[in-house]
Amino acid sequence: MRQYEMAEFEWNAPAPKGSEAQIDLCAVFTDGEKEWTVKGFYAGNDTYKVRFLPERPGRYSFTATGSVLDGPISGIFTIEPAAEGKHGPVRADGIHLRHADGTWFYSFGTTVYALAHQSEALMAETFDTLSHSPFNKVRLCVFPKHYNYNHNNPKYYAFKRSKAGEGLTFEVEEGSQVAPMSEVTDASVNNWDVHHPCYEFWDAFENKLKKLAALGIEADLILFHPYDRWGFATMPQQDNLVYLDYLLRRLSAFPNVWWSLANEYDLCRAKSLEDWNEIEEFVAANDPFHHLLSNHNCLKPWDWSRPNVTHVSWQSKQMYRVGELQQKFKKPVLFDECRYEGTVPESCGNLSCRQMTQHFWHVTTCGGYCTHGETFFPGTKEAELNTATGESEVVWWARGGRLHGESPARIAFLRSVIENLPGPLEAAPAGLGAMAGKSDDEIRAFLAGVPDGYRTFIQGLIDMGPAERDKFLSVEFEFAGKTADDSAFLFYKDSQCCSAADIMLPQDGTYRIELLDTWEMTRETVMSGVSGMTRVIMPGKPYMAILAIRE
Amino acid sequence: MRQYEMAEFEWNAPAPKGSEAQIDLCAVFTDGEKEWTVKGFYAGNDTYKVRFLPERPGRYSFTATGSVLDGPISGIFTIEPAAEGKHGPVRADGIHLRHADGTWFYSFGTTVYALAHQSEALMAETFDTLSHSPFNKVRLCVFPKHYNYNHNNPKYYAFKRSKAGEGLTFEVEEGSQVAPMSEVTDASVNNWDVHHPCYEFWDAFENKLKKLAALGIEADLILFHPYDRWGFATMPQQDNLVYLDYLLRRLSAFPNVWWSLANEYDLCRAKSLEDWNEIEEFVAANDPFHHLLSNHNCLKPWDWSRPNVTHVSWQSKQMYRVGELQQKFKKPVLFDECRYEGTVPESCGNLSCRQMTQHFWHVTTCGGYCTHGETFFPGTKEAELNTATGESEVVWWARGGRLHGESPARIAFLRSVIENLPGPLEAAPAGLGAMAGKSDDEIRAFLAGVPDGYRTFIQGLIDMGPAERDKFLSVEFEFAGKTADDSAFLFYKDSQCCSAADIMLPQDGTYRIELLDTWEMTRETVMSGVSGMTRVIMPGKPYMAILAIRE
Repeated sequence: MRQYEMAEFEWNAPAPKGSEAQIDLCAVFTDGEKEWTVKGFYAGNDTYKVRFLPERPGRYSFTATGSVLDGPISGIFTIEPAAEGKHGPVRADGIHLRHADGTWFYSFGTTVYALAHQSEALMAETFDTLSHSPFNKVRLCVFPKHYNYNHNNPKYYAFKRSKAGEGLTFEVEEGSQVAPMSEVTDASVNNWDVHHPCYEFWDAFENKLKKLAALGIEADLILFHPYDRWGFATMPQQDNLVYLDYLLRRLSAFPNVWWSLANEYDLCRAKSLEDWNEIEEFVAANDPFHHLLSNHNCLKPWDWSRPNVTHVSWQSKQMYRVGELQQKFKKPVLFDECRYEGTVPESCGNLSCRQMTQHFWHVTTCGGYCTHGETFFPGTKEAELNTATGESEVVWWARGGRLHGESPARIAFLRSVIENLPGPLEAAPAGLGAMAGKSDDEIRAFLAGVPDGYRTFIQGLIDMGPAERDKFLSVEFEFAGKTADDSAFLFYKDSQCCSAADIMLPQDGTYRIELLDTWEMTRETVMSGVSGMTRVIMPGKPYMAILAIRE
Repeated sequence: MRQYEMAEFEWNAPAPKGSEAQIDLCAVFTDGEKEWTVKGFYAGNDTYKVRFLPERPGRYSFTATGSVLDGPISGIFTIEPAAEGKHGPVRADGIHLRHADGTWFYSFGTTVYALAHQSEALMAETFDTLSHSPFNKVRLCVFPKHYNYNHNNPKYYAFKRSKAGEGLTFEVEEGSQVAPMSEVTDASVNNWDVHHPCYEFWDAFENKLKKLAALGIEADLILFHPYDRWGFATMPQQDNLVYLDYLLRRLSAFPNVWWSLANEYDLCRAKSLEDWNEIEEFVAANDPFHHLLSNHNCLKPWDWSRPNVTHVSWQSKQMYRVGELQQKFKKPVLFDECRYEGTVPESCGNLSCRQMTQHFWHVTTCGGYCTHGETFFPGTKEAELNTATGESEVVWWARGGRLHGESPARIAFLRSVIENLPGPLEAAPAGLGAMAGKSDDEIRAFLAGVPDGYRTFIQGLIDMGPAERDKFLSVEFEFAGKTADDSAFLFYKDSQCCSAADIMLPQDGTYRIELLDTWEMTRETVMSGVSGMTRVIMPGKPYMAILAIRE
């Protein structure tokens, strides 16, 4: 057993009477310094398990108790140091993310909502694609997904059927338009017996999580979502908590899981704000290993200032607000849906490859983290290439298969740039953008120190008033970031076609300047020994970036 | 003398004593129904003139009086009907623009600030360029312009020098960086004797206005601006009014002039808001022919609701707000600076050709009017091609010369599309954008009528609150417009790469659908006889538009 890998303990005993989800089994682990209380679960087939995620090597002891055992069970075990390449669970560190061993985690996410609910052939193809992709995080759902281009029933569901659910087939005519979510707000649909998990489902699902871990990919697990025809979105709240209890017993010791309470919580009309607060509290209280936890919106942002929330998980194209959110929440800022590269009619899914690449540069330059998705229209030539499995309507964003957009290669280039920086970036907007999110008084204080010619502009920002100023700055924003110690500055020139660019660097110390073509994926050192205001000669074309590294 | 052309009456008499700008000469014109009181001006060389702009054919009489004449002079004259192609001055009609004869005027502007302050060779080249361009409006300054890439002194200035101005050379080292505007706020710089116009200047300037008229181009005259080293921006207010008095006496009868009180009034630190109000009032009161009048901002918008203001003249990239401004001001909405196509380092001047084209489509689709400018970086290969005159640092946006951007051809295509519509467009945003600028209560009222699946989204917009909603809608906006009578609908799909698009048309009547490639400049009828919700098959690439014309 090794540091940062799940340690599993199991015993055989007769199946529980009554609930198979909420059983009386608990273990206390200690390394002599710290203590972890971990609930066990029934895994089917007369097997009980307790899982533990060790974060330090050394000698541990444990004692398991509970009515499903004949009596307390104790033991001692040793955790070896981490295997090479294993860095432990990812946690927030200020506005950034680090593995438990301190390694920075620069999140480059993608989205395959129903990854785990596909045919074995398709899932194999998806993992193969991921293994060649730049992505180190995947957003995926526990429950299956019902939406346009997503009509298949999964092989397994998380639970056995209830009386009400018996005999339901859940079939949908392929190719038909589907309402994305039901308007049901009466949380009493009860097709499922949450007290009786479907063990084949959970075994298969865990298998996918392990495959992701083996690829170095974090699993941003979506616990609820509104795109449903099976009744998972409308279960009674008491069933939601039983489901979460079982899930947390099974999955909390996986090193690579994050908890995303929902995809688009605000479209889940069957749940009230009180329900969500209870869900958030339950997940936080029942995860002994404190994985990342957030909640994801469609329209109204979740309140990411809540103490249980570890990071911002925002669906938005308001890229210029990375710095504002870093300041406001003091937490990592993830743009977990900036729309999808593709060609579907739905406005969420027809970003050009250039736009998706721009979105990644916008967010990443400011020290935020961006998440990709891909939605080429089924039936078009591009989409036919999407899978070798022969299945129709395979769209990456929900079902996986093949990526064939042009942004992933550019995202890989960006990742290589970022991972070679001396440290993580934070927003340091250039030009007037530095005034974004500031109050009149803050801008007045800044005004005193600016050069004459520039003062008129800054005064103008005050004269505009906050509402017009916000709107003005949102379209004038220039994306720039820097490391906390000024060792690196990144200026993303976006669609600006400059033949020259003026950048402001610190006066103390000198910098080497690299010119990056974010579309052609080239980088070249063009200056060295510079400091202060510096004019960089540019090629007069869009999608260029300037990187300054302290010498 | 013809309808819609300036009628000029002149007399010889000795030069005035004292002020040559504000002389005692006035004429009353009447066609028997209506009366116009028009001030005359001294044109130098012992010549006095009175100018009149007749808007109807027929018999007119006039009586001129004033101390510069020996006694009253009366006369009768006939105005012939308009020559072919002469439609009269442009005026506002609701949110649109029409010539006096009722012909719609679809403004497609460009910007050559210092057009009239260049060498004869360069000005000839500029007019030649304009004659082949899609532009029917030019923004140009009365005073010369001092800015980066604009260092030349003009041949003539509007006035003779004052004592303080004698001997000043105003030279600037070519290629040096210049502060764009002075921070002088003491409006007492007095290099010029405004009571003694420089007649060579005015004759030459009028010549340019006539050349524009001959090309069918409106002259959006900028009366003040901050980019100055000669002292025009810092004249005392009493001198500003004398200057305006003389200008209005001379130029009000030109059919093709508009009054733009300023370029970037809010950067003119020497003028207070009271000064601007007085200037606005003075111009409106002293123009007997009521030309279009507006004021143009850098940051803080002018209050376009003021009664003297005929239209919105906004510097902005907030294209999604066309409809909001139409609703708010009930006046034509002109985006008179959406930044410039080019490659200069200044963020105002490095739009790609694609972006400039997009801006025109954004604004025009919503029934607004957009103004172009071009700023290729001097010294680059592109800029060398800019002029055949051998002058350096010739940038179209200030000095004219040659256009070599790729947007003008696309703007010409757009103009041909718009001019062949049955009437002018007004904003009719598609999708959630229809909620932009609406209050919670207005959205609640709308909510009652929307289909089930969509209701959740609309409710979400209410839940977001106005501030977040505004920001959300600003990045989700989908540009669409329609004629008031539903005879045409235009959907600009912008950078969306759809393989199909769903558009909503009225149920009554049928429509012919054209697919427009706004970049490749092609149009093709792809459907006919359709109504209601219609799916249009698209090529999955950006910059497409859909035009629906009622059959």
